[in-house]
Amino acid sequence: MAGSLTSMPASVAVLGCGLIGASWTALFIHHGLDVRAWDPNEAARRQLAAQIGPLLAQLAELGTGADRPGRLHVQPTLRDAVSGIAWVQENAPENTALKQALYAEVEAVVAPDCVIASSTSAQTWTGLSQGLRCPDRFITAHPFNPPHLMPLVELYGPDRGTLARASAFYESLGRRVVVLKKDIPGHIAGRLSAALWREAVHLVAEGVADVADIDAALVAGPGLRWSVIGAHMAYHLGGGRGGIEHYLRHLGPSQRQRWESLGRPELSDDVCRRLIEGIAEEAAGRTIEQLEAERDRMLVRLLKERGREGD
Amino acid sequence: MAGSLTSMPASVAVLGCGLIGASWTALFIHHGLDVRAWDPNEAARRQLAAQIGPLLAQLAELGTGADRPGRLHVQPTLRDAVSGIAWVQENAPENTALKQALYAEVEAVVAPDCVIASSTSAQTWTGLSQGLRCPDRFITAHPFNPPHLMPLVELYGPDRGTLARASAFYESLGRRVVVLKKDIPGHIAGRLSAALWREAVHLVAEGVADVADIDAALVAGPGLRWSVIGAHMAYHLGGGRGGIEHYLRHLGPSQRQRWESLGRPELSDDVCRRLIEGIAEEAAGRTIEQLEAERDRMLVRLLKERGREGD
Repeated sequence: MAGSLTSMPASVAVLGCGLIGASWTALFIHHGLDVRAWDPNEAARRQLAAQIGPLLAQLAELGTGADRPGRLHVQPTLRDAVSGIAWVQENAPENTALKQALYAEVEAVVAPDCVIASSTSAQTWTGLSQGLRCPDRFITAHPFNPPHLMPLVELYGPDRGTLARASAFYESLGRRVVVLKKDIPGHIAGRLSAALWREAVHLVAEGVADVADIDAALVAGPGLRWSVIGAHMAYHLGGGRGGIEHYLRHLGPSQRQRWESLGRPELSDDVCRRLIEGIAEEAAGRTIEQLEAERDRMLVRLLKERGREGD
Repeated sequence: MAGSLTSMPASVAVLGCGLIGASWTALFIHHGLDVRAWDPNEAARRQLAAQIGPLLAQLAELGTGADRPGRLHVQPTLRDAVSGIAWVQENAPENTALKQALYAEVEAVVAPDCVIASSTSAQTWTGLSQGLRCPDRFITAHPFNPPHLMPLVELYGPDRGTLARASAFYESLGRRVVVLKKDIPGHIAGRLSAALWREAVHLVAEGVADVADIDAALVAGPGLRWSVIGAHMAYHLGGGRGGIEHYLRHLGPSQRQRWESLGRPELSDDVCRRLIEGIAEEAAGRTIEQLEAERDRMLVRLLKERGREGD
């Protein structure tokens, strides 16, 4: 696959046109790539063009795309979508057998150097790659919701050449690529999120604070700071002049104690009810669409500000 | 204490002039309050005025302060600092006996309605309030580092009147106040941070990714999103049209599985060495002062952007 590093695909096949597929479609088009999109559901295919309209408008506001946007070609069959294509972004439901069946269909059509990238959040490369004729062409490429705005893409695959092509490709779309050295369920972001949420649920279960107050504390505290520096770096800067070394030596034992005291909540009926009621209170009548729109408006503003000095 | 809600203190005593005390001092002065500062260490007292200079400059750039800044009066004794004062912000080292001895000295001097607020991150109200003559006047008021920039202040105390005064006071300084319903070590922010960092350390220990890559994934993914919406709300919006209720019903079991798979790392010599080396690589020669300055510059920019529509 030498030489492929400099030759970016001019068109991409998007398989699965739900939330994630539509979001990738908008991002690709914004960056001048033609998209051949397919979904087994005819309604999903029909709605795609309308669905990406608002996403393209948000991306236009960010203003980091190509001079000329790519074109959307919704395809009636998977075969039409992938014929002659060099990059496939798969966004099927989190069902291993279903995804593997798709890959078999794709491999029957595409050229040997076509990359198949799965957006999977829950499956591992090892699980999904069973049965592929050419496993080296296959990677997991996990975006973070909402994928057209969030910079992170987490990659895993065994083939260095494919990973190098993938890094260059997603970086050309303005993504922040992180390559995992081991195949692990949930990748990095999903695992960090699960770890934090477990404690957030514990605090609700224990009656320490309401859902809305916990969210407010996160947004005005650790969340804001983690949007600027990571968790490891935060402990380095929390160690005073001695940094992480001082921190580990002097506060390591108290951190260990804190870890021991973290909760292990059950998602019991009672806890679920309190989470649902808490969200209703926090949403204060706003629909999911309204909450998403508010989130995305603020994300666009913050991303513009971060990008101003080439963040 | 009725009626006190509308009468904000015009001056505050700051006890302990380290990083946290200096940061509070800058914030109070920026908002027009006079500060009477004391530290048992003479060098700390002498350096305070110079130390708050850059912090005041950052706050001036944020531009949310009083028309006329307050004045700094460094005091030679604790008695001088607290005489006639209505609000004490205590920032002594995390040593229960030391803090309790300070409170006894303060209570011997101040009027009955003076509030004593502890910036403690590690101690509980219950532990610290032992021995106070007037425990109702005592609260924990935990800021988030760096306190002059981070909006969050977490409050706990048993007296509703004191809590109401404290909420009004810190909100008048542009803080986002969250009141805990139970006294718990680490409050909300410290516990969420510890939970996330445990998994971040696990990923380093397991060789899934380097320190710098884990930090990058957090900043470009969950951190950025948690600076806009909280963790509970993120799962509400991750549940599709059915929201949190749909999420808990359909993905609750997989979340439970994920929780079971989270790491329980030891801070062994080997893991500590990898954390220290990883931070050195991420810092790439930048000193702690440089890293803090970069962090604070970006925080100021993001806070300005967030504040633009009255966030």
